[in-house]
Amino acid sequence: MKVVRSPKQIQEIVRKIKKQGRSIGFVPTMGALHPGHLSLIRGARKDNQAVFVSIFVNPIQFGPREDLSKYPRPIKKDIALCNKEGVDFIFYPSFKSMYPDGFDTYVNVPGLTEGLCGKFRPGHFKGVTTVVNKLFNLIQPDIAYFGQKDYQQALAVKKMAEDLSMPLAVKVAPTIREKDGLAMSSRNKYLNPSERKDAVLLYRGLKLARNLINKGNHNCVSVINSVRKFLKQGRTISVQYISIVDLKNIEPALILKGKVLIALAVYAGKTRLIDNIIVKI
Amino acid sequence: MKVVRSPKQIQEIVRKIKKQGRSIGFVPTMGALHPGHLSLIRGARKDNQAVFVSIFVNPIQFGPREDLSKYPRPIKKDIALCNKEGVDFIFYPSFKSMYPDGFDTYVNVPGLTEGLCGKFRPGHFKGVTTVVNKLFNLIQPDIAYFGQKDYQQALAVKKMAEDLSMPLAVKVAPTIREKDGLAMSSRNKYLNPSERKDAVLLYRGLKLARNLINKGNHNCVSVINSVRKFLKQGRTISVQYISIVDLKNIEPALILKGKVLIALAVYAGKTRLIDNIIVKI
Repeated sequence: MKVVRSPKQIQEIVRKIKKQGRSIGFVPTMGALHPGHLSLIRGARKDNQAVFVSIFVNPIQFGPREDLSKYPRPIKKDIALCNKEGVDFIFYPSFKSMYPDGFDTYVNVPGLTEGLCGKFRPGHFKGVTTVVNKLFNLIQPDIAYFGQKDYQQALAVKKMAEDLSMPLAVKVAPTIREKDGLAMSSRNKYLNPSERKDAVLLYRGLKLARNLINKGNHNCVSVINSVRKFLKQGRTISVQYISIVDLKNIEPALILKGKVLIALAVYAGKTRLIDNIIVKI
Repeated sequence: MKVVRSPKQIQEIVRKIKKQGRSIGFVPTMGALHPGHLSLIRGARKDNQAVFVSIFVNPIQFGPREDLSKYPRPIKKDIALCNKEGVDFIFYPSFKSMYPDGFDTYVNVPGLTEGLCGKFRPGHFKGVTTVVNKLFNLIQPDIAYFGQKDYQQALAVKKMAEDLSMPLAVKVAPTIREKDGLAMSSRNKYLNPSERKDAVLLYRGLKLARNLINKGNHNCVSVINSVRKFLKQGRTISVQYISIVDLKNIEPALILKGKVLIALAVYAGKTRLIDNIIVKI
């Protein structure tokens, strides 16, 4: 396994691999790898002849009052984990090499990024689609892997790749969870014991919604209110949103039919957590 | 030579050519080919093993009151010209195949596209960088060719490709002119005889500016005013802008030093014409 810091060098490596006709699987990450990332890497390893992982805490997807500076960066541990998983190349660029002075090009998918998290994190998804577009151009993957936990991100990236005819496929893999159901996230490290305890309510709340719907409650407002009430037992929890939306355009589902996404974002103390499930009606 | 209409088919062709290790030169056009385009195609022919020309009148780069519907579309003549120039593939997609229902991804280079023409054509350059990004992803050229007449467009495309690490080079070729100096443009066809006569003043005005600067007049305002006065002799001409700007960031040149771009846009009757020259001080 090789750790590459320079964009030029990664381009040379990619060129060679392409010439050899080897397929490239790519897992873009911000590091602080957890079993969710590792499951993506295993998927990439299974499908492809070469596996690239990028580790880059992308400043332009963080808002001014968000956690950019304290975001965990355990690079040595991450490298060891990638090595163990049979990754071929880690791309670990510096900020300056990704965004040289005067950088000023942005890729935006407005329709899919205004709702859900986009409403509360203005500019976030523009930062995501821009950096992922650039990473796709550098790594030129055949398949790129994203986790369902960040459903809106995966959807926006997929839409970007399709709309711009990028020659690659985007695969979305299931959310990996702790034993108690908490979705794996690098941000779980921020939680103190009582927040960590309350954090289990997110997935339980989503399952509650699924149960209500399965039992025949097809009234979105009522289902959402039940989840909101349920989450109130977590003293450290404050809800940002709970939404039931169309799977494809993430617009609020007016009629519960077919498949819908139930998504929520809460603060546990000062830590923002998100989770979602897909429910078939 | 092959004319290809489907994006999927062009991707397959590109894949084959890449596999053969042949280099791809690409000239994106809106058709109505003139000697300016042909000079770009010759450049592409000289530098590369396969030459692709796209012909696509891109609706999203036209404003609501612009000339989208009357833009010339002499496709048979264009095909014959490409054939004569040894083009290998013409990509001639439909609107629907480039922008399927729900298309909603945009590439923007804000800093370079707010001044000059961008001020008078809001949304224009966003339409250009978006379609060119998509065309680059479809054709995957080694080198793409643009004309200096559309200097701001070429600069924005070059910046986009660099910022997003697209694996290609952008070459900008000199403006090709009629015998009397008028810059070749598909829009010249719109001109009636008196407008056509007045249109020669654009290049003469630019040369006047160069002469004034070369003779030691380094006062931008004074040089611009002289050009404005000079253009007044064209009864069908109304000036949109005359600017002297930095070559790299196209911001107004405060001090005339090094190389500058003198650029102008005028209406000759109802036809918008642009031209520019680079002057070394």
